[in-house]
Amino acid sequence: MMTRIGRATLRLENPPAIVGYAAIGGKKEGEGPLGGAFDQVHADTTFGETTWEKAESRMQKDTVHKALDKAGLSPSDIHYVFSGDLLSQIISSNFGLREFGIPYVGLYGACSTMAESLGLAAVAVASGAAERVIAMTSSHFATAERQFRFPLEYGGQRPPTAQWTATACGCAVVAAEGRGPRIRQVTFGRMIDYGVTDQNNMGAAMAPAAADTLQAFFEDTGSGPRDFDLIVTGDLGYVGSHLLGKLLEREGILLEERHTDCGILLYDRAKQDVHAGGSGCGCSAAVLCCYLLPQLAAGKWREILFVATGALHSPVSLGQGQSIPGIAHLIHLTAGGEA
Amino acid sequence: MMTRIGRATLRLENPPAIVGYAAIGGKKEGEGPLGGAFDQVHADTTFGETTWEKAESRMQKDTVHKALDKAGLSPSDIHYVFSGDLLSQIISSNFGLREFGIPYVGLYGACSTMAESLGLAAVAVASGAAERVIAMTSSHFATAERQFRFPLEYGGQRPPTAQWTATACGCAVVAAEGRGPRIRQVTFGRMIDYGVTDQNNMGAAMAPAAADTLQAFFEDTGSGPRDFDLIVTGDLGYVGSHLLGKLLEREGILLEERHTDCGILLYDRAKQDVHAGGSGCGCSAAVLCCYLLPQLAAGKWREILFVATGALHSPVSLGQGQSIPGIAHLIHLTAGGEA
Repeated sequence: MMTRIGRATLRLENPPAIVGYAAIGGKKEGEGPLGGAFDQVHADTTFGETTWEKAESRMQKDTVHKALDKAGLSPSDIHYVFSGDLLSQIISSNFGLREFGIPYVGLYGACSTMAESLGLAAVAVASGAAERVIAMTSSHFATAERQFRFPLEYGGQRPPTAQWTATACGCAVVAAEGRGPRIRQVTFGRMIDYGVTDQNNMGAAMAPAAADTLQAFFEDTGSGPRDFDLIVTGDLGYVGSHLLGKLLEREGILLEERHTDCGILLYDRAKQDVHAGGSGCGCSAAVLCCYLLPQLAAGKWREILFVATGALHSPVSLGQGQSIPGIAHLIHLTAGGEA
Repeated sequence: MMTRIGRATLRLENPPAIVGYAAIGGKKEGEGPLGGAFDQVHADTTFGETTWEKAESRMQKDTVHKALDKAGLSPSDIHYVFSGDLLSQIISSNFGLREFGIPYVGLYGACSTMAESLGLAAVAVASGAAERVIAMTSSHFATAERQFRFPLEYGGQRPPTAQWTATACGCAVVAAEGRGPRIRQVTFGRMIDYGVTDQNNMGAAMAPAAADTLQAFFEDTGSGPRDFDLIVTGDLGYVGSHLLGKLLEREGILLEERHTDCGILLYDRAKQDVHAGGSGCGCSAAVLCCYLLPQLAAGKWREILFVATGALHSPVSLGQGQSIPGIAHLIHLTAGGEA
């Protein structure tokens, strides 16, 4: 079951295990530092489909199959799937997951979706509502550009604070029993709005939310950065990560070298032209599923905090003069073992 | 806690209570049969704001305040808010709820959102993850037309199968302790796609999902339509309700006069030009919060099934030739009393 501690944190007394996980990426992601860790990389980012949106749905579908295979499970073993994505009316998730016939809980949390889905998955399993569930999300560079900015054909210039939306998908199978990294604690975040209106500076829009959620977690649990091997935000990129450090420093919290960010890990800054780093729901989802979880399972790290961050805006809200609120959800993960 | 029964249903052993609820509507909704039941009706559907989208956000914000007032609670008493809406990147919810500072779980379930949010709220409370949470959603005729069809200025004609998106919002406060109707069982549905591609016939797209979820619930619980005073779908409207009856009849399940639909209840078919009935997330949310819950609280009905239905599509998915999958989530509610 679970215990509520402090303002916003849940402690799962029987921590669910992540018994299967997979990540699929595009060409650019395959050429980055984590390229070899992906379960599959597609040089053709259409994934053989006729539209970018169908490509992203296809990526979700294929990633579910990979994760289930690795867990030795089939779709009928899964009680719920929690998924969402960046697109209007989350069509990547709807059409990617339609044919599985699994009860479906659609989410929208922008790039915080992997932590949002994992948090809800953990609550579902720890409460006895389900034995095995799926948490997942995806993004695609070309669908996100069309959705939020300009069609690729327009050839818009990107300022230095802009991030690169990852073509990637991550899927985690969370279960009451089995072997794998465990979900110990969850902190669902609140919206924080510092008035940022620059859609080419998502890191600045999201950093205050990451700071707020981390601060809440440390206060709720009486812990500090030194209690963890790694604190991984995503996707703040270089600009947002710098701001996060500054914001927490003001509160007397020093993340130091324990902190890194999925938007920093996914690409090689020197060789790949991604400006302020990676972004998109799929960035933190894939980094979690192809890098963080395998390392936890192998016991390289014992305790990590995974803090996925989202920027809550749309072209319509920006056009109407609204600023961009951020949100961040936190998952405390520990090394593998029998659950 | 909770027990999983059958394929998809959760039985909540300590059923949470809905201790507060409110509904706000627009001019047309105020002129309908339930007009007098709304907590507030605005003759000016801009709600005093400069854009339709800001108006919908304002409606969410105001409805939260009304529901909390009626429950004798303040925002700081609420542990989580579960909300979503029809707009791209759910901006009505994001901007309507931003200033409350409550941990926020964003959803996208199209017009199934009220049952989706209520189901997650019930799981959160019954599992001990939270003591008091908010479940809510909204829709606005003018924002939905702009999102899914044409701007109002275009003056597009509506065929007879088209439904009218309600300008309405419903908000429910779900708590572990207190007085009010109780959430006994929850069935989260799966996507069902019969290949409907007509965006002006949402009832046909959603009816198969409603049938699937109701059938799962009856099988899981060993119950039938006669065990309930009322089975309320939403928003199938006239066309979808007719199809639902036909689909279930084939399975030997007769809903008969126990069945009605939020899209039928909200407007007067003879006097208000809504074609096949009402729709929009706010339709079922408002009918629940201004009509069903008060009648349950008063003991007029003892047992009802609330089955909110959603059509999972976007202008982009339709433009790319995708059909429209439906989804339906079910909430079993019982008459009020101390929880």
